[in-house]
Amino acid sequence: MDDDSPYARWEQRTEISLFLASLLFLAAYAARVLAVSMPSFWKDVCLYTMVALWLLFAVDYVVRWRLVGGRFLHFARTHFLHTVVVLLPLLRPLRIVPLYDAIQHRQGEPRLALHARVIAYASLSTLLLGFAGALAVYQQERGAPGATMRTFGDAVWWAAETISTVGYGDITPVTTGGRTIAMVMMAGGLALLGAVTGSFSSWLLQIFSRESDKKPPES
Amino acid sequence: MDDDSPYARWEQRTEISLFLASLLFLAAYAARVLAVSMPSFWKDVCLYTMVALWLLFAVDYVVRWRLVGGRFLHFARTHFLHTVVVLLPLLRPLRIVPLYDAIQHRQGEPRLALHARVIAYASLSTLLLGFAGALAVYQQERGAPGATMRTFGDAVWWAAETISTVGYGDITPVTTGGRTIAMVMMAGGLALLGAVTGSFSSWLLQIFSRESDKKPPES
Amino acid sequence: MDDDSPYARWEQRTEISLFLASLLFLAAYAARVLAVSMPSFWKDVCLYTMVALWLLFAVDYVVRWRLVGGRFLHFARTHFLHTVVVLLPLLRPLRIVPLYDAIQHRQGEPRLALHARVIAYASLSTLLLGFAGALAVYQQERGAPGATMRTFGDAVWWAAETISTVGYGDITPVTTGGRTIAMVMMAGGLALLGAVTGSFSSWLLQIFSRESDKKPPES
Amino acid sequence: MDDDSPYARWEQRTEISLFLASLLFLAAYAARVLAVSMPSFWKDVCLYTMVALWLLFAVDYVVRWRLVGGRFLHFARTHFLHTVVVLLPLLRPLRIVPLYDAIQHRQGEPRLALHARVIAYASLSTLLLGFAGALAVYQQERGAPGATMRTFGDAVWWAAETISTVGYGDITPVTTGGRTIAMVMMAGGLALLGAVTGSFSSWLLQIFSRESDKKPPES
Repeated sequence: MDDDSPYARWEQRTEISLFLASLLFLAAYAARVLAVSMPSFWKDVCLYTMVALWLLFAVDYVVRWRLVGGRFLHFARTHFLHTVVVLLPLLRPLRIVPLYDAIQHRQGEPRLALHARVIAYASLSTLLLGFAGALAVYQQERGAPGATMRTFGDAVWWAAETISTVGYGDITPVTTGGRTIAMVMMAGGLALLGAVTGSFSSWLLQIFSRESDKKPPES
Repeated sequence: MDDDSPYARWEQRTEISLFLASLLFLAAYAARVLAVSMPSFWKDVCLYTMVALWLLFAVDYVVRWRLVGGRFLHFARTHFLHTVVVLLPLLRPLRIVPLYDAIQHRQGEPRLALHARVIAYASLSTLLLGFAGALAVYQQERGAPGATMRTFGDAVWWAAETISTVGYGDITPVTTGGRTIAMVMMAGGLALLGAVTGSFSSWLLQIFSRESDKKPPES
Repeated sequence: MDDDSPYARWEQRTEISLFLASLLFLAAYAARVLAVSMPSFWKDVCLYTMVALWLLFAVDYVVRWRLVGGRFLHFARTHFLHTVVVLLPLLRPLRIVPLYDAIQHRQGEPRLALHARVIAYASLSTLLLGFAGALAVYQQERGAPGATMRTFGDAVWWAAETISTVGYGDITPVTTGGRTIAMVMMAGGLALLGAVTGSFSSWLLQIFSRESDKKPPES
Repeated sequence: MDDDSPYARWEQRTEISLFLASLLFLAAYAARVLAVSMPSFWKDVCLYTMVALWLLFAVDYVVRWRLVGGRFLHFARTHFLHTVVVLLPLLRPLRIVPLYDAIQHRQGEPRLALHARVIAYASLSTLLLGFAGALAVYQQERGAPGATMRTFGDAVWWAAETISTVGYGDITPVTTGGRTIAMVMMAGGLALLGAVTGSFSSWLLQIFSRESDKKPPES
């Protein structure tokens, strides 16, 4: 993509504010789920903030589509990650890595090695997926009859054992909503963890092979 | 393979009808398993449909063998996927990807990138394997003494946690039939998920490395 | 290695008989473990057969070492798989693949593709590891107080969910012996399954990329 | 890095003593956790030894930073493994592989193949992570109300099923401290196991492909 296209300029100008907006969205959702004893006025504030932010994200998505042009379905497919984060705005902070790259680039700092960046990106995404998933499942399960997930600590522990595919089974979602979110987490977690371990494995091989080259050859 | 060989022409002519037939087979099986209160006349219709469709698949398999020629065992080995879908006709819709490719090809649309196609193919296969496995295990477990899998929702949830290897253990098959099908699902699921995560990992590395090339080099 | 060295000739002459001996060893062990009501005379026959076969394997190992020459530790390290199968003779049938290769080679049949051979080898090894592990753990657990593994069917189901890392936890070893064998199975199973899924993933990528090359290029 | 730089000389001179110190640290920790009936005098000796050794590691870390120079954060990031082992000194024995390499190098022995070294390194790290994690979690869980982890044998078995992601769930940590350590183990174990299985898979492919080249080509 050309760096001077209207699309690239739109991205550069809005990226940081949209990232802050996405963190605010996550915070508002977390407040609504976790702060049980919050007065209902503040609960409504959280809700309206989320709706407003989501509208903002939707506007950004539509603007990007108009700037690219073409059929909507084609845009939705080629900008797959944007489509996902409009539908699941909790995952929007995933866009932190391009942002971090852009900031470092302006400061002229050398960037991390390729594998390190993939690992950093996938690990951050996994953490975010785990946190957002724990929040969403906890909201579904809280108060359900027969639920084994009683505190948010339980939900975080459940998310960790689910994404790592350990799955002890001491805590499991029992509601249909919770199980559906859990399936999305399993699918996303597996893909991301595969990326982490695959890159880590290539990276280790690369480091070890570079060390071999450095030293004098042996029979 | 030559595009004008009798084998290729047979494939082009029959592919779409056989794909629709395989969806019908899956639907008939699902109806038989899930629609408990269906009158027995319709249950028989489902059964006869399945037998007829399976015969159709078997005829297609034999025709392909005769078109290729040679010894049967050699054909069965070199056309391994065809052999599998004749034995396990529930998995026949797996052939959707070559079909989708063929259709897009006629319409002159550009095809997806290599990794995206592998991921799409393996993900669809995983979904199909999970759905067919949930149906088959549910049929075995339903009504077994001590079964923890009570509804089809339970069966889908069990299939998701099995294929992702999370395995909470809140729902487990207890019959020999259910466990045997579960072992096939584990083997197939692992292979397919490995393909998804492996391709996703290579894809991420490729995307990140392309981005690096695009930007000006840094020390 | 030179095909005419004394080592290679020893291998060619003894390979088939030793493979049959290793199957006999596995069968004798299975008989001892599974045939509970077998008269003690036949139990002793099984035991003596196992001891005799193990001595045979040890002699083969020492002969190989003498043919190669050099220090023992160096031989043990460079012929790692031989060392493993002398210590754990239940796994000796793993050597089936080189044998199968050798037989096909004599008959002049074309060999399977590289990835297919790795997948076949690793899958067979996984099956063997699972069967031998199920036998060995069943022998430890049978009759232990509080054991959840009651029949050999349970043991096979447990082995499948362990090697696939699903781990429902409906059946778990409770004795120290059973748990120790289970840890070896986990380590071996993970390595082998990683090889299966890794090769399957590369293979799919290769097949899809070959298909892309075959068809006319598109924009 | 230049082999004659002050940093490299510092590393060569201190490596072996620091490795022995790290083993002593692990032993002192294990003694404190496992030897329940040890008189409190010896418990204090263990504690003071650990504090002294940790100070030694911290001094080594600071000296390395001063020898490299530059900003602290930059050093902490580029010497990531050193930073990790200063914060989690139980994992310090991980540095065994560079040491083993250095010793073999002096003796002029040929080194292991690339993949074998990655596998050896990652397997040793996994074992160490499992042992240290079992100790640390056992210390948290011991005596907690409702704990299912009663003996150190239980802790080792739990660590094995966690790192291999089998996760039966027969034993699970229930305290917040134990669960936090378990999450670190899951993250580290997945990365290391991914490295083991990835390298093993590449290694098998390489061995099989070398065998193919060796034999006469077939149609």
